[in-house]
Amino acid sequence: MKDNISFSQFIKNEKEKVLEANLYLYSAGLAPLTWGNVSERSCFDGKTYIFIKPSGVAYETMAVDDIVVVDEDGNTLESRLKPSTDLPTHLVIYKAFPSVMGVCHAHPEFLVAWAQAKKDIPNYGTTHSDFALSSIKCTRDLSKEEIDSDYEKNTGLALLESAKEEIPGINVSSHGPFSWGKSGIDAVKNMITMEKIAKMALLTTLLSPNVKPISDTDLAKKHYLRKHGKSAYYGQ
Amino acid sequence: MKDNISFSQFIKNEKEKVLEANLYLYSAGLAPLTWGNVSERSCFDGKTYIFIKPSGVAYETMAVDDIVVVDEDGNTLESRLKPSTDLPTHLVIYKAFPSVMGVCHAHPEFLVAWAQAKKDIPNYGTTHSDFALSSIKCTRDLSKEEIDSDYEKNTGLALLESAKEEIPGINVSSHGPFSWGKSGIDAVKNMITMEKIAKMALLTTLLSPNVKPISDTDLAKKHYLRKHGKSAYYGQ
Amino acid sequence: MKDNISFSQFIKNEKEKVLEANLYLYSAGLAPLTWGNVSERSCFDGKTYIFIKPSGVAYETMAVDDIVVVDEDGNTLESRLKPSTDLPTHLVIYKAFPSVMGVCHAHPEFLVAWAQAKKDIPNYGTTHSDFALSSIKCTRDLSKEEIDSDYEKNTGLALLESAKEEIPGINVSSHGPFSWGKSGIDAVKNMITMEKIAKMALLTTLLSPNVKPISDTDLAKKHYLRKHGKSAYYGQ
Amino acid sequence: MKDNISFSQFIKNEKEKVLEANLYLYSAGLAPLTWGNVSERSCFDGKTYIFIKPSGVAYETMAVDDIVVVDEDGNTLESRLKPSTDLPTHLVIYKAFPSVMGVCHAHPEFLVAWAQAKKDIPNYGTTHSDFALSSIKCTRDLSKEEIDSDYEKNTGLALLESAKEEIPGINVSSHGPFSWGKSGIDAVKNMITMEKIAKMALLTTLLSPNVKPISDTDLAKKHYLRKHGKSAYYGQ
Repeated sequence: MKDNISFSQFIKNEKEKVLEANLYLYSAGLAPLTWGNVSERSCFDGKTYIFIKPSGVAYETMAVDDIVVVDEDGNTLESRLKPSTDLPTHLVIYKAFPSVMGVCHAHPEFLVAWAQAKKDIPNYGTTHSDFALSSIKCTRDLSKEEIDSDYEKNTGLALLESAKEEIPGINVSSHGPFSWGKSGIDAVKNMITMEKIAKMALLTTLLSPNVKPISDTDLAKKHYLRKHGKSAYYGQ
Repeated sequence: MKDNISFSQFIKNEKEKVLEANLYLYSAGLAPLTWGNVSERSCFDGKTYIFIKPSGVAYETMAVDDIVVVDEDGNTLESRLKPSTDLPTHLVIYKAFPSVMGVCHAHPEFLVAWAQAKKDIPNYGTTHSDFALSSIKCTRDLSKEEIDSDYEKNTGLALLESAKEEIPGINVSSHGPFSWGKSGIDAVKNMITMEKIAKMALLTTLLSPNVKPISDTDLAKKHYLRKHGKSAYYGQ
Repeated sequence: MKDNISFSQFIKNEKEKVLEANLYLYSAGLAPLTWGNVSERSCFDGKTYIFIKPSGVAYETMAVDDIVVVDEDGNTLESRLKPSTDLPTHLVIYKAFPSVMGVCHAHPEFLVAWAQAKKDIPNYGTTHSDFALSSIKCTRDLSKEEIDSDYEKNTGLALLESAKEEIPGINVSSHGPFSWGKSGIDAVKNMITMEKIAKMALLTTLLSPNVKPISDTDLAKKHYLRKHGKSAYYGQ
Repeated sequence: MKDNISFSQFIKNEKEKVLEANLYLYSAGLAPLTWGNVSERSCFDGKTYIFIKPSGVAYETMAVDDIVVVDEDGNTLESRLKPSTDLPTHLVIYKAFPSVMGVCHAHPEFLVAWAQAKKDIPNYGTTHSDFALSSIKCTRDLSKEEIDSDYEKNTGLALLESAKEEIPGINVSSHGPFSWGKSGIDAVKNMITMEKIAKMALLTTLLSPNVKPISDTDLAKKHYLRKHGKSAYYGQ
């Protein structure tokens, strides 16, 4: 279907979608100032393109043509602006997970708190189980070598050690979360979900410091399978 | 009075009311993304109808005709969309509580935290007492059998073991709250009230971990009876 | 000046001011649903009138003519609606404190948490000192007799045991705050201030459970006197 | 460039910028009621001017011509209103830090909590490292002599003992934060950043009371240098 439109129309449509996804992240309060970025992967005429937020540009004034277009290796194809510094992390995620068409990074308060505490977020209830059965992982720390050279790419590679394609998000140790999905907007929705889960989990530990995770319970499996997989019956 | 309007007008009016109640829940911030649903029960020409939010539809784009109409047993009477997956829980509540004409389910942060901590919310003050004398209950866990077959209906049946018709809400263990009332809007108001109570109670325990509930005090009874029962003198 | 306008114009002006003050309280998020009320005292032609929010009326639909007018003893002078049930508490405060021309009651989350914990809010910094030198008091509990008869009036009388005219607010034990000021709007501003102080104090105790109050320090006195009394130099 | 415009146009432009910066602070929720102020330093024809919010004026009604113009010693050059009482603190900061062209003071909830707890805010992650490597300092307490005479100026002088020009903000003990930057708007952005860091750090300690700061790690240095200094590559 995309091939029935012109290349310039394809580029314009995608930029609009990615701008919208970035503004959605901002209006959800998860990326104060310029602290976040959303990208989307899309194909035209057999070639793959990544569309991403420019680095350090204010959301309030961001325009369609500020969105940066790169190829799968991160080479800028069209732009007056530099892409987000986190682009290499996005690229590693796209390369590893073929079904992922959108990636999001942000600094939401509760997810960052879990990342700074270097703790996985345990599955304490059905809100979490609707998203994933296991905990939301926190990555290992990077080594000095990984930080000194190709830091953003190595962040992605370390992230892959704990990430699974079907659990669309993870926390990077001492830093904050990345999420992904079947579009840029979908990646943002997964970020919103993870931040709610992170807040609920923190509040739960305040009420009951020794509460047990429910990951391996029938309840958790029921909720996960109600929304995911062949027997899913949630939604339309 | 309702019988003076046509059946199609009755259906249209009810759908509008139920859409409004669902949007009220969403704008109150208690149902992020699509995590909530409100239904209303209403009669026309001697027959009973339940109107409920469709499953997994975004609040931002929900339209009057997206509201699903079912009978008391959950058979879809008119709809292009599937009803909320939680419909069977709503039906159990309507069947058990004849005076209830609206039911609401949502994932508010503080109520979910209490549900995940598997704790009743104690009555710590007059805000709670205006709503109920006793604690807001948390249900027992479901068994494997109850989860594997007719999960949503069994959630309702387990909920009834702890619920009382006159206390219009409860928390489901490891999950979150259901509320009810004399209309869909009224059920949402009770959800808003319960979330405020849940937040105030958590903050109270942070300030004073050993604070005692006031359920059996004269102050609590005074407040409850000021708003409920024959001698109520609050409101118009 | 007031006497240059007609009595009906005086009534209309005051009702508008009191409606505005009530809507200000609501939009500040301190009175969810109908849980709050603001009144103002004003004189015309040598007689004193109290204007107050009606009981249990939704803020969204409240109109100028819904505001209830009573005399100093609470006798309704003009209204189609019942006054707030808390009116007798307002009247006790007006009677005791001649300079007070506005009173406010609400259920803000952090103030209610301190009230439910039955604790005074200690003065931990200059934000508090700008408002008062001492802690914000929590009243004693009422006796069964005080609750059973004239409850709202007795709430006011117990409140006076701990309240001072120059510290424009107090917390009622297991209940929540009353504030006052030189107008209805001013009473609401003092409520906003107290809620901020209550939140900051709770957060402070989370960071440092044994932090000491600064009530008797030079810093606290400096800030209090910068804003209050003869040598005040804050503001215009 | 500035010298190509008239003096009156320069004054008008600067007042508009400073009004905008003050309204930005207010709309960010960091300065409830009138609790905050932003100033900007600017030069015209070889002379230096400071533009600052008037004392105790409501943000909702503040107009361009309410902004007060003073010289570097705080002498009012043009105004119908008194400058913010905190002006002497701003002046000390401008005098000490030549590159600073904007200063901001506010009472944000989490920063004030850290100030009231008299604790530095440790660097727990990359959000903090993007702003500063070290902790965000809390000043020493002032002596009785420093409080009794020239209190606001002495607040500034004590602040300088812990502050560094390149770390654009600090917390004043038992009081709250000051921030600075290359303009009034930039100082406000640094205040927003510090409040997010303060909230994230408090939440982190709730999850992990003994978490270690990362100030001296390679990760922290990488993030700081990605945004600051010669090798910075963040932004455009």
